Amino acid sequence: MAFYLLRATAEDNRRLSHAVAVLLDEIVLCERCNAIADSELCAICRDDGRTERVLCIVEEPHNVVAIERTRDFKGRYHVLHGVLSPLQGIGPDELKLAGLLDRVRGGTVEEVILATSPTVEGEATAAYLARLLKVGTVKVTRIAMGVPVGADLEWADEATMTQALEGRREY
Amino acid sequence: MAFYLLRATAEDNRRLSHAVAVLLDEIVLCERCNAIADSELCAICRDDGRTERVLCIVEEPHNVVAIERTRDFKGRYHVLHGVLSPLQGIGPDELKLAGLLDRVRGGTVEEVILATSPTVEGEATAAYLARLLKVGTVKVTRIAMGVPVGADLEWADEATMTQALEGRREY
Repeated sequence: MAFYLLRATAEDNRRLSHAVAVLLDEIVLCERCNAIADSELCAICRDDGRTERVLCIVEEPHNVVAIERTRDFKGRYHVLHGVLSPLQGIGPDELKLAGLLDRVRGGTVEEVILATSPTVEGEATAAYLARLLKVGTVKVTRIAMGVPVGADLEWADEATMTQALEGRREY
Repeated sequence: MAFYLLRATAEDNRRLSHAVAVLLDEIVLCERCNAIADSELCAICRDDGRTERVLCIVEEPHNVVAIERTRDFKGRYHVLHGVLSPLQGIGPDELKLAGLLDRVRGGTVEEVILATSPTVEGEATAAYLARLLKVGTVKVTRIAMGVPVGADLEWADEATMTQALEGRREY
């Protein structure tokens, strides 16, 4: 990054310098979903074209960007800002869960997608949230684990291969 | 490998030398499934404890070993010894398809799992086989694509993220 800045124009660097200086003043967390926002609600929560029926729960704000890039998801998000990690002293109280239960219980949400990472902490968090959020007729789903697209099966580890077989779908 | 052999005992090296010398005389392909075998039929095809109702189609013999390692699959295999690749001149005639259609049409097979890699060639091969094998009541399934177990979502590419969302399952 330093070498890039040395080759950039003085004007570009001035603009970047300003952006960094005001960053924490102008960027806030969305009051509803905890994603990055520049006003009370983030652009996704403000967008009336998105359905409130599907709620996707992710660990970090950058996960929202990654899922948005697929252009396949038209629902809303809830960002936890972390995962359960007893060894690091992170329990449910350290996650941003405020408002989540109310949103799910509100009656409009039909499906909650648990999109935490398939790591030990991400799985533990998904299990915790599944218990918490399976209320009424709300369907709780988990993103698919399996062989990454484009990857040769040769490099799939045992746990991933097991998930790929278990999660097989009709062609 | 060379450095390992320099540190091995003379006896170990003599045994390895002999094994390599007789390898191609003693190892053949299973007459039914094309997996590695030391007699007409491979150990899996000889094993009466395995069900003939589920057939898993893989690209290469080493894929059989990888799936066996999961201990989750109790059916039989069919090894193609390759994938369709028009650019490399590999069409259906270059794959080991002989006997496959007869096995599937035989009446005992209820499900065919297409376990080729989620690469371009692997997907094309799966699509070809799905058309070929969807006969009668046989169910054709595809292994799950998604985020590998243990991986952080941050590193999932767009195509994998799309598959992970599409393939989500009820928790």
